[in-house]
Amino acid sequence: MAGNSFGQLFRITTFGESHGEAIGVIIDGCPAQLDVDLEYIQGELDKRKPGQSKITTQRKESDTVKILSGVFEGKTTGTPIAMIIPNEDQRSKDYSHNTNVFRPSHADYTYQTKYGIRDHRGGGRSSARETAARVAAGALAKLLLKTQGIEIVAHVSSVGKIDAPNVFIDDANDFIAEREKNIVRCADPATAEEMIEFIDGVRKAGDTVGGKVSCYIKNCPVGLGDPVFDKLHADLGKAMLSINAVHGFEFGSGFSGSEMLGSEHNDIFLSGDEGIHTLTNFSGGIQGGISNGMPLEFRVAFKPVATIMHNQQTVDSEGNAAEISGKGRHDPCVVPRAVPIVEAMAALVLADHWMRNKVVKLQ
Amino acid sequence: MAGNSFGQLFRITTFGESHGEAIGVIIDGCPAQLDVDLEYIQGELDKRKPGQSKITTQRKESDTVKILSGVFEGKTTGTPIAMIIPNEDQRSKDYSHNTNVFRPSHADYTYQTKYGIRDHRGGGRSSARETAARVAAGALAKLLLKTQGIEIVAHVSSVGKIDAPNVFIDDANDFIAEREKNIVRCADPATAEEMIEFIDGVRKAGDTVGGKVSCYIKNCPVGLGDPVFDKLHADLGKAMLSINAVHGFEFGSGFSGSEMLGSEHNDIFLSGDEGIHTLTNFSGGIQGGISNGMPLEFRVAFKPVATIMHNQQTVDSEGNAAEISGKGRHDPCVVPRAVPIVEAMAALVLADHWMRNKVVKLQ
Amino acid sequence: MAGNSFGQLFRITTFGESHGEAIGVIIDGCPAQLDVDLEYIQGELDKRKPGQSKITTQRKESDTVKILSGVFEGKTTGTPIAMIIPNEDQRSKDYSHNTNVFRPSHADYTYQTKYGIRDHRGGGRSSARETAARVAAGALAKLLLKTQGIEIVAHVSSVGKIDAPNVFIDDANDFIAEREKNIVRCADPATAEEMIEFIDGVRKAGDTVGGKVSCYIKNCPVGLGDPVFDKLHADLGKAMLSINAVHGFEFGSGFSGSEMLGSEHNDIFLSGDEGIHTLTNFSGGIQGGISNGMPLEFRVAFKPVATIMHNQQTVDSEGNAAEISGKGRHDPCVVPRAVPIVEAMAALVLADHWMRNKVVKLQ
Amino acid sequence: MAGNSFGQLFRITTFGESHGEAIGVIIDGCPAQLDVDLEYIQGELDKRKPGQSKITTQRKESDTVKILSGVFEGKTTGTPIAMIIPNEDQRSKDYSHNTNVFRPSHADYTYQTKYGIRDHRGGGRSSARETAARVAAGALAKLLLKTQGIEIVAHVSSVGKIDAPNVFIDDANDFIAEREKNIVRCADPATAEEMIEFIDGVRKAGDTVGGKVSCYIKNCPVGLGDPVFDKLHADLGKAMLSINAVHGFEFGSGFSGSEMLGSEHNDIFLSGDEGIHTLTNFSGGIQGGISNGMPLEFRVAFKPVATIMHNQQTVDSEGNAAEISGKGRHDPCVVPRAVPIVEAMAALVLADHWMRNKVVKLQ
Repeated sequence: MAGNSFGQLFRITTFGESHGEAIGVIIDGCPAQLDVDLEYIQGELDKRKPGQSKITTQRKESDTVKILSGVFEGKTTGTPIAMIIPNEDQRSKDYSHNTNVFRPSHADYTYQTKYGIRDHRGGGRSSARETAARVAAGALAKLLLKTQGIEIVAHVSSVGKIDAPNVFIDDANDFIAEREKNIVRCADPATAEEMIEFIDGVRKAGDTVGGKVSCYIKNCPVGLGDPVFDKLHADLGKAMLSINAVHGFEFGSGFSGSEMLGSEHNDIFLSGDEGIHTLTNFSGGIQGGISNGMPLEFRVAFKPVATIMHNQQTVDSEGNAAEISGKGRHDPCVVPRAVPIVEAMAALVLADHWMRNKVVKLQ
Repeated sequence: MAGNSFGQLFRITTFGESHGEAIGVIIDGCPAQLDVDLEYIQGELDKRKPGQSKITTQRKESDTVKILSGVFEGKTTGTPIAMIIPNEDQRSKDYSHNTNVFRPSHADYTYQTKYGIRDHRGGGRSSARETAARVAAGALAKLLLKTQGIEIVAHVSSVGKIDAPNVFIDDANDFIAEREKNIVRCADPATAEEMIEFIDGVRKAGDTVGGKVSCYIKNCPVGLGDPVFDKLHADLGKAMLSINAVHGFEFGSGFSGSEMLGSEHNDIFLSGDEGIHTLTNFSGGIQGGISNGMPLEFRVAFKPVATIMHNQQTVDSEGNAAEISGKGRHDPCVVPRAVPIVEAMAALVLADHWMRNKVVKLQ
Repeated sequence: MAGNSFGQLFRITTFGESHGEAIGVIIDGCPAQLDVDLEYIQGELDKRKPGQSKITTQRKESDTVKILSGVFEGKTTGTPIAMIIPNEDQRSKDYSHNTNVFRPSHADYTYQTKYGIRDHRGGGRSSARETAARVAAGALAKLLLKTQGIEIVAHVSSVGKIDAPNVFIDDANDFIAEREKNIVRCADPATAEEMIEFIDGVRKAGDTVGGKVSCYIKNCPVGLGDPVFDKLHADLGKAMLSINAVHGFEFGSGFSGSEMLGSEHNDIFLSGDEGIHTLTNFSGGIQGGISNGMPLEFRVAFKPVATIMHNQQTVDSEGNAAEISGKGRHDPCVVPRAVPIVEAMAALVLADHWMRNKVVKLQ
Repeated sequence: MAGNSFGQLFRITTFGESHGEAIGVIIDGCPAQLDVDLEYIQGELDKRKPGQSKITTQRKESDTVKILSGVFEGKTTGTPIAMIIPNEDQRSKDYSHNTNVFRPSHADYTYQTKYGIRDHRGGGRSSARETAARVAAGALAKLLLKTQGIEIVAHVSSVGKIDAPNVFIDDANDFIAEREKNIVRCADPATAEEMIEFIDGVRKAGDTVGGKVSCYIKNCPVGLGDPVFDKLHADLGKAMLSINAVHGFEFGSGFSGSEMLGSEHNDIFLSGDEGIHTLTNFSGGIQGGISNGMPLEFRVAFKPVATIMHNQQTVDSEGNAAEISGKGRHDPCVVPRAVPIVEAMAALVLADHWMRNKVVKLQ
């Protein structure tokens, strides 16, 4: 109810503050007998961790995950899986300046007003550090989906006004390999270079910039998603919008679909050797809220990071005018580190609906 | 779990198929002692009902709502409120042609595959007729919010490539009055005329077109929304994406925010007679997932209606090639009737979070 | 959250007041393709309905159930199933005497204080009339369980201090047939006669009496129930305690088990042609919260009905001393009509856990 | 869904196995600004911990709780509170004997069959060690309730066939002080002595024995509990039945109420200086599922511990006959250590319903 849980059958609950003892996650409902590849989970966390490159925050966290329960002799047992990531590089005094001052476009003011108290160190619970817990849980969800052949890949498709062209790499591993060749995580090498240069310039100017992540889900079977409120894209949308800094979500034809005619937009059904499929995919792989066997496709828009290295006008907790200048260690552009988070959240939605789909028919 | 419920504390469950006996909704958790203005609820349904004008479907349904429980002597009692809307104009035989043929970009194929059975008459459960139940429940949520001064208004801000300019009408009633002066429900009269003419042309061509609805929430207090997964905009996003034909959601700066610099995008805090507020509102009234006292602003993209009056290629349930031609009575453009649905879903989210916000502090 | 829903995957929400327009239930999550035997459902309701015999209330309700949605051509479709039971014999004026006076051991005082308003006619929502909706939903759950061979039978095992001996009838249909031969629904004919005579005497004295219902679940597979909080017996216990007038629940050895030694109480495992089973069944078919393949056994204690035909001292809503005398039509003993309710609630728990058990292992 | 969470608004999720790294609990929804008295929480854990006296298991665990999140400068912040209790004295090899053999009346067989895998060390997740996490969370719930003056006290009211007389100590602290004077936690000193002697004899005989815990909730306001399924006693019943070894629950008149007449059982309303109350309390403080301002009273029956130091016949995982002899360190009687668990679970139910009651009326 307090909004720290996600999913119904494959359900996670995250906890922890940016500068507390540790952050972590409980995964409840993961089926028993799943092989837990801890190295894979750690690898996913490594893609999100701070200090990766010149275009990410310099905060140093090894983000080493530890499993406390629910796994026995390398396999899940059906009991809750607790994962914990200790906080290490907690320079909390970096944040003493914002105890009583509200940083613009941050959550300081709203948390303080809602709860009457807040852990102001590094954003506390509102810090994107919480997403490390999601990545750990999402990695487990990916392992579950991999047993069914379902693969999820995302990459940075735009930074500011720099857009990547569509990338056609069918194989999920190849796609990821290509994307991981550059520090901005764009699967188009030429655009990647342009993006990196741009972000670096923004960083040097003490500024930040937004961007977009595109995500593809391959080999998704027909039937995932529930009609009415829990449509597959509605749950994906909520998942993405719950990631820090996200301001928009679209799937399939998305916003541009609103400009089209029905005669252009309809996806004609064909049938062939691989069974029923559609000629085009404006539906983004989802019809009536349920996956139709085509690849899922969606895009997520991230606003620029709010912490900039400029002086900014603001108010303090007494409502007096104040000034604040950016301190601490922050990302000039959040999207390169957001790629594994988008994938993780997508995996959590898919794993949940894959389980939910097991009980809809009498068998 | 099967996805027919929405909300946590103010929780609704809808039921009913397009051509069944009736559709309806149970509202569980509405606080006791709320005055129930049945005329207002019916008025909201009238804005959604079919057959309103030349640019909506000609199906005739009075959509008369009846309350079966939970209201005593004009007030809510705290017990579940059941509302029922009988189906009247069920020309089910209009749909006999699609018993075994999958209509392109509809839910026929996915429902049939997921459940192994479907009520094919008029789309059954996948029909947008289900949203009448949401509008009835949302009207009650609006009545609850009105006791707190919270007002929700939406209008059609684009049809195809025709965009309305920003509309500046502060008062919610004035806004609605202006919007209701035309059949397309756009609060800018000049654009409205253009839109109507365009839709009428599309209709005559047997085609359909998409569009966008913009929504504003006024007098929203600081503090609604929960951090992490149930961010206010994440719940709004899910609510909107769960409406039939929606392909995109953005709030505040939205997708265009992803192209901006932090120094442009940050909303500077000011303090004055009305308390703390922000100079700009790229945050769309939500920071850290929690309302900040500024107006909420979001936009919803609808794809074109899938049923067109053209012959289309498709497949049947055996996987053989088939042809289908649009029959039945359908909307050439869904957005005019979607306006009350967008408002209703927004009201359900706000009412739920207004209640949830009552228990976050020890008092 | 407001407590009108029960179950997770097989989830019901009931609505309606004793003297309102109708009562009903939404069943969300019932698997698709289940054959719906409406006659069977009506038959279960007939066992609960008022006016059956001289030892039940004389209120006359046909309790005819109508399905509004979710069933197509005799089968469930996976969409929500709405069932409605109109109220017919609403002699609301019988209740005008208790508008402002709190009936002893009823819910008048607590509802009025909690909500500040109540539908006082016939107890409103607190009336046991609500359980008709449970019986309708439970009948559907039983149909689901029957496809798996799981059978649920209950009977009246005590009235006041009259206890029935253990009944050994293995076949569920035979058990029910025997039980239905008498109006008190006790499967032991000799005890039944004694009970009927006793209840009739109590009725003539304008008094009421309590009793117990014993329930057996046959052919329950190993594995139903979840460890920790949702143990099978914990969910059964909650289900039973949620029935009006229930004051106690025990399973297996129950309260008498608290007096035993471990060496007496342990159920020794044996293995034979029918697989692993236990010699004794003090565990009541449940170990560690999970069914072990033995028959489930539990008992439910009902207090005497609060409405008696005597004058009683009480207070009114202003806190002044008042007197009340029983009016309206009430049961002298609730247990004969409680038998189908106990079975229905047990069926709802079992159906839910049967579904939940489908997703616990990777397969 | 997997049953490791409890509560709606004040919601806990426990994790951890008996012989894993740690056990713990996430509390989500605890209101902000509550003072966290860590010493009090530890004190509650100390009452449950093993190795307290000659009549408890000799396993040594300090059960030192650590808070990882959600508390800032001694107060709750409204974010999830993670508490962790490391496992110390893990003599897992004590359990190597039961890897492939099912211990009678334990959860070995049902877990193995349900999940196809189990952590057999010390019962794994089925071990009562999990209840330490509940006691930690329940202690926080008690702190919340104490701010409202609500007090919960329990004691051992029977061991085997030894019953304590009713104890009349009005003040909660005095009651606890009296109870804590003896190692069996019975508030009647004479009976306590008898119980201790009896348990010690049972222990020496390598056997175990059951017992009962009685619980009283004082200063409970009118209005807690929700009608229909989430009646206050139904939620208390589920809470208690979810505790390891519990086989029965009754409140107020309980099972004996089923033998009474309505004219004896009805609780006459009186009104006086302290407002409306009842002359008797057969209702156990709950009417229509809602607290009526009288003390809550309920009793919980525990079966004897299954692990005895005798040789017992059983089967192994291949279904072959086998023999098992009790090893490890176990309690001869569980009720003395169950007292804080019963109180903790009651506190969790009360805290949840206290919060839920804040949103039922429009205000």
